[in-house]
Amino acid sequence: MPYVNIKITREQEPITPQQKAALIKGVTDLLVDVIDRGPKTTVVVIEEIDTDNYGVGGETITVRRSKEQ
Amino acid sequence: MPYVNIKITREQEPITPQQKAALIKGVTDLLVDVIDRGPKTTVVVIEEIDTDNYGVGGETITVRRSKEQ
Amino acid sequence: MPYVNIKITREQEPITPQQKAALIKGVTDLLVDVIDRGPKTTVVVIEEIDTDNYGVGGETITVRRSKEQ
Amino acid sequence: MPYVNIKITREQEPITPQQKAALIKGVTDLLVDVIDRGPKTTVVVIEEIDTDNYGVGGETITVRRSKEQ
Amino acid sequence: MPYVNIKITREQEPITPQQKAALIKGVTDLLVDVIDRGPKTTVVVIEEIDTDNYGVGGETITVRRSKEQ
Amino acid sequence: MPYVNIKITREQEPITPQQKAALIKGVTDLLVDVIDRGPKTTVVVIEEIDTDNYGVGGETITVRRSKEQ
Repeated sequence: MPYVNIKITREQEPITPQQKAALIKGVTDLLVDVIDRGPKTTVVVIEEIDTDNYGVGGETITVRRSKEQ
Repeated sequence: MPYVNIKITREQEPITPQQKAALIKGVTDLLVDVIDRGPKTTVVVIEEIDTDNYGVGGETITVRRSKEQ
Repeated sequence: MPYVNIKITREQEPITPQQKAALIKGVTDLLVDVIDRGPKTTVVVIEEIDTDNYGVGGETITVRRSKEQ
Repeated sequence: MPYVNIKITREQEPITPQQKAALIKGVTDLLVDVIDRGPKTTVVVIEEIDTDNYGVGGETITVRRSKEQ
Repeated sequence: MPYVNIKITREQEPITPQQKAALIKGVTDLLVDVIDRGPKTTVVVIEEIDTDNYGVGGETITVRRSKEQ
Repeated sequence: MPYVNIKITREQEPITPQQKAALIKGVTDLLVDVIDRGPKTTVVVIEEIDTDNYGVGGETITVRRSKEQ
């Protein structure tokens, strides 16, 4: 029955439906494996965030990406 | 003063502004009725999530919908 | 299948298990009534927050309570 | 290392990337100044919410805006 | 750099620090495996919720547990 | 009217009510300064998380703290 919320940036190469399905399956399985919480009502919500709206270390990901290049 | 966050899937037939207003009014009233928390600063945020991004029981809602048909 | 998170302050007179159950039932019913989202996998999580940790209008609820008296 | 989530309405005049960067920098600095939590892994996520989806006092921001005019 | 929030119920047999570490490691690895998002600033927060405060299908987990026995 | 959620670890030297009030005041003021969002219904919620329950880079803060010493 756990609830999981994943926030990730929306990048130029978008996350595919297959990747999203793999994240949802993977987290649900992990919770069964590690703490044996039944998967039937496990809810996983993925939220994609613009790189302007996500900050790490006081900078937006947009700025961090531009410095990496 | 409570804060309420509602996450629901974005379906083909979208939730109307009237339905959203009814959810916000309904939750705010419920909190007054059940625990008598003054409604003036109650905040309700509705977030609509793509069916590819919402998983229950290890599967995305997209996949669950396709199996129901 | 919606997910609802309610954050409310933990007051001197605590919210009873009966009140929590009424909130969970009430929100779940509201989502069925307004947008007809099946209740079986609706998840509601109530989080109780110390009044020192909850702020409205730039002040903690602790301070607001003390001014009301 | 703190995590901060800011939910604000998406208005007709959108929040600029510069304003978002200023919010992220400002919150990160505030956490260093007030509680001395190292900024390197501080994460700030800004989510913009439609005014139909954000309610205060039992009304959507859309309705509150229309009454103010 | 993703952010993950896991909400699970606090049961009589508590989740151990080792299990929490395994959940944090497992989710972080999963995000690298599936979408190749660098793990250094991935943040995972586990929140334990009383069974009176967690509802599924309109009932608290406390009530659901009592019916299962 | 923004909503802000701050998650920080609960350390041996706890965050004082004065520090919490300063965080709430500081974030509320920042939102006025940067995006001119009226402070009266701004809500700030601070959640303190055990170091076993907060992970960065695949490790709990408890483990990271022990390595720093």
